[in-house]
Amino acid sequence: MSGLRQNLDFLLHDWLGVASLTTRPRFADHSRETFAAVLDTCERIAREKFAPANRTADVQEPHFDGECVHLPESTRAASDAYVASGMLAAAQDYDLGGMQLPCVIEMAANSFFAKAGIGLGGHMLTSGNANLLMAHGTEAQCRVFAHQEFSGRFFGTMCLSEPQAGSSLSDILTRAEPDGDDSASDPLGPRFRLRGHKMWISNGEHELAENIVHLVLAKIPGPDGKLVPGARGISLFIVPKRLVDLDGDLTGERNDVALAGLNHKLGYRGIPNTLLNFGEGKYPVRGAAGAIGYLVGKPGDGLRCMFHMMNEARIAVGLGAVMLGYAGYEASLDYARGRPQGRPIGPGGKDPSQPQIPIIRHADVKRMLLAQKSYVEGGLALELYCARLVDEQHTGDAQAAKDAALLLEMLTPIAKSWPSEWCLEANSLAIQVHGGYGYTRDYPVEQYWRDNRLNMIHEGTHGIQALDLLGRKVVMDGGAGLLALAQRINGTIERASPHADLHPQATALAAALQQIGAATKAAWSTGVPEEALANAVPYLQAFGHVVLAWIWLDVALSVDPATPAGQGRLAAGRYFFRHELPRIDAWLAVVRTRDDTCRTVQDDWF
Amino acid sequence: MSGLRQNLDFLLHDWLGVASLTTRPRFADHSRETFAAVLDTCERIAREKFAPANRTADVQEPHFDGECVHLPESTRAASDAYVASGMLAAAQDYDLGGMQLPCVIEMAANSFFAKAGIGLGGHMLTSGNANLLMAHGTEAQCRVFAHQEFSGRFFGTMCLSEPQAGSSLSDILTRAEPDGDDSASDPLGPRFRLRGHKMWISNGEHELAENIVHLVLAKIPGPDGKLVPGARGISLFIVPKRLVDLDGDLTGERNDVALAGLNHKLGYRGIPNTLLNFGEGKYPVRGAAGAIGYLVGKPGDGLRCMFHMMNEARIAVGLGAVMLGYAGYEASLDYARGRPQGRPIGPGGKDPSQPQIPIIRHADVKRMLLAQKSYVEGGLALELYCARLVDEQHTGDAQAAKDAALLLEMLTPIAKSWPSEWCLEANSLAIQVHGGYGYTRDYPVEQYWRDNRLNMIHEGTHGIQALDLLGRKVVMDGGAGLLALAQRINGTIERASPHADLHPQATALAAALQQIGAATKAAWSTGVPEEALANAVPYLQAFGHVVLAWIWLDVALSVDPATPAGQGRLAAGRYFFRHELPRIDAWLAVVRTRDDTCRTVQDDWF
Repeated sequence: MSGLRQNLDFLLHDWLGVASLTTRPRFADHSRETFAAVLDTCERIAREKFAPANRTADVQEPHFDGECVHLPESTRAASDAYVASGMLAAAQDYDLGGMQLPCVIEMAANSFFAKAGIGLGGHMLTSGNANLLMAHGTEAQCRVFAHQEFSGRFFGTMCLSEPQAGSSLSDILTRAEPDGDDSASDPLGPRFRLRGHKMWISNGEHELAENIVHLVLAKIPGPDGKLVPGARGISLFIVPKRLVDLDGDLTGERNDVALAGLNHKLGYRGIPNTLLNFGEGKYPVRGAAGAIGYLVGKPGDGLRCMFHMMNEARIAVGLGAVMLGYAGYEASLDYARGRPQGRPIGPGGKDPSQPQIPIIRHADVKRMLLAQKSYVEGGLALELYCARLVDEQHTGDAQAAKDAALLLEMLTPIAKSWPSEWCLEANSLAIQVHGGYGYTRDYPVEQYWRDNRLNMIHEGTHGIQALDLLGRKVVMDGGAGLLALAQRINGTIERASPHADLHPQATALAAALQQIGAATKAAWSTGVPEEALANAVPYLQAFGHVVLAWIWLDVALSVDPATPAGQGRLAAGRYFFRHELPRIDAWLAVVRTRDDTCRTVQDDWF
Repeated sequence: MSGLRQNLDFLLHDWLGVASLTTRPRFADHSRETFAAVLDTCERIAREKFAPANRTADVQEPHFDGECVHLPESTRAASDAYVASGMLAAAQDYDLGGMQLPCVIEMAANSFFAKAGIGLGGHMLTSGNANLLMAHGTEAQCRVFAHQEFSGRFFGTMCLSEPQAGSSLSDILTRAEPDGDDSASDPLGPRFRLRGHKMWISNGEHELAENIVHLVLAKIPGPDGKLVPGARGISLFIVPKRLVDLDGDLTGERNDVALAGLNHKLGYRGIPNTLLNFGEGKYPVRGAAGAIGYLVGKPGDGLRCMFHMMNEARIAVGLGAVMLGYAGYEASLDYARGRPQGRPIGPGGKDPSQPQIPIIRHADVKRMLLAQKSYVEGGLALELYCARLVDEQHTGDAQAAKDAALLLEMLTPIAKSWPSEWCLEANSLAIQVHGGYGYTRDYPVEQYWRDNRLNMIHEGTHGIQALDLLGRKVVMDGGAGLLALAQRINGTIERASPHADLHPQATALAAALQQIGAATKAAWSTGVPEEALANAVPYLQAFGHVVLAWIWLDVALSVDPATPAGQGRLAAGRYFFRHELPRIDAWLAVVRTRDDTCRTVQDDWF
């Protein structure tokens, strides 16, 4: 059994006890065995179809011939295998062809694909797109679009950003105007014509599926023809690449959505990332320019609909970052076991007449491996914990669901940002373990590092996550979210304290939690947002390290210390408490003092 | 005047007072004006020839057709311009065609090339190679090889590593055997035949110069035919790619050195990095296989000769890391000034009817720019400080030279490692400032980040630098080096303390220095090397941050606070003291406690 699989089994069963979910009606047909079968299948497909295609997708970038985007054949084979696995509908109802899997199992299963080839297919986008329609679309929109996505006939995108509007979505300029007199009565939803440009659209153009379902944020002009400033003017539209009838069959009409360009990226090269022109007249449809789009939900509700899915999308990004880190950890562990170099430091120095030893026996190599282990296994535990909260939100009783939703609000910025930063650091350590070989393309670790650099940027940058956490999440409902999280953490501390070997960690975590509380209060003590938020990123970093310390302590309570794997987990936890958690002092010092060094610096001082 | 040039002028003149060097006989013909002329010339060549070639060298990797390595035409043009500038002999005597420039001016001038195109030419290798021969070679070796390198007719390499011997040079297997009966009397030095493989050889094969002078570490077998284990068996040889006569002219004979392969790297792609086969018979010479090489210095003295140049080579690597960081800083500063996105955080939130602001006005973007500024300008100051010490070592009076040599021993591991880590972090921040655009190859910052990742690996990895610092440098001569450095730092503290605005920094630095001393003692208190050195890298990191805090405080004493540039330097120093220096607590805690988490972890726990 692979290391990842063993680790997943430990986290899912020994730690999270997910088998208990099978007592709930929605999961009643499931068992530990059916969960295992899903993991087996996904691990096999990932190994057979994704892993061999990963470097090819990096080297043979998406190519546009003026009409079609071409991808390597092995990317198509990987995508087809994923579709055939049924994972696109993993969490859906049986009568939609789904498996009614818990989110936590779905995430665990998807971890194999992320580790083997993060840039192959981008299927999370399709599930996320369809899930959004299931929550906010009409019955016809679900049937015609979402259901086709779950079966893999259609793939999906999310079209938010524009060249001039990245993090600031309120500044989008894409316009949506009613499409003629009968526009309100279209059975697929109020019909509009969209005109504008969308940037950074993953999977915006390809031939991996019959059709592409774009979910597009746009603004409906007011009676004066002007766009409403700010987020409240934003609406959401379904804009299919090819028009469909009420059975979800293609009508043969191409919609007016055109590829304006492919972005040439540092990594994640398997997924074509695009600039799309909507309604510029390259593909006039039904006699006119303008991309046909169907309104989802109410006008002005666009952001609310889109952000409905944001927690799960951000957890998925975090999981991707974790699994890139995991892939690098495994590769460098393998290398360190096989590479002889140097000799032990003995009392009399090194004896050159002795044979060299594998580098895994050097203390600093162990340090780099243990750091990676603490980042990637800790990160994986966090993501699964969050996924388990999603299940609680969907299938728990009312109070449990409410609690879970609150905790998810708190943890999502961490689940997204923490692995993006620290599993990237893990990838850098994996290169370092390899020495010069890690800097060459003969080994996979440099690609993991390049791929992972994306994750601090997309789905809300580090800076945006930090503002979300310190500006919104910790202060919402009078601090209810922070309180709920603190209660969970205190529960772990109470359970760990009686154990002699975990007592120091419990004490350290309690002190760290107290520091977070004090820094939060001090940051907001003047009530001036610029002062409170000037050091939001160091706050996010400290908060993340405290959350991960909590996760490691909680994991330690489920460990079997009689096994080498158990000893390894305890060592990774110790590493985190001794080497990592103390970093929070430096981060929180500037938060607590509302340090103004950065915010007061003037442009002409640079 | 460019920002870098202004900064160099400030550091060289206002801070280091380098004009005073012109009172020394060796530099008597120089003046502030002649120094400025050199900087002007180098800045112009870097802008005109290096900058435009930088991306081309990244995209069009070195290509081997079986006989020759091909590089882009623009790389050759850049290299030719560098040779024509005379910088290869910048520090040499006038009668060798040199300029007798101080090392600190040579480094400052070379910083322009490193910033504009780090992977173009690798001329530092050629100067370093020739300098080594000037120190250890015979008159004939200097004339025939070194002088041709200073003029740029020949280029040089350093051949240390082998596929099985990277950090552990004592395990090299390349053999050198006397080349016939007259071998001892060759006018170019005792003549040997070398056989073996050398890995990671930068500039190992190209057509940029008439000839390539390889300096090769190899072992001379004992009478039993066996190689002597360990470092003491290592000798140094000159192995020219093409054989030369006593006038330095090519004889027309190709030596038996063959390219076995090019390494395909993550970055630094302009410099062909090679695996070379010595003496495998591809180019039999004078009737036999075996590469002809001339002994430099005495048998067994190879490492000592090679390491003679190591301080300057490591400072040069550190400078390269700094300048990659600098390039990213400038690019992201430029982007942040021109990119509108978002609005100020006001008392009533953000007003979407207001126009967007340039992102440089957001506190977190300022933080990312100020962090970069503190890393790259601090790093530049450190490298120039070290270069100034090299000048003191070469041209100061006996005591000053001795003091400078001692300080250089202490500072070199930091000068090499600190920028490799933190200016890489600066490059990551430069990507982050750009958002998604920074992740594309339409902007230069992703290349800087890839290029800079090499610097923690070559010329002694981070781990090797850490062992050198904690295992050798701080304990040598009963701690004399640490004491000398502490005296310098205390001098700065004393000068800064009376200034009200610098007093807190002086106090913090004094405390940090005390922590370093205590941690050093505690680490070695048991006298067990494995215990002391288990956390050598965190020690190196903390030591580096303390050195940089010292540099920033010392720089602050020379700042003119009436200018925006002066305010910027003070802000970068404040940033370093408030956000960076406090990190040392976490690093030193594990050193002080001789934390055994990493060194005691077992292979099967992973």
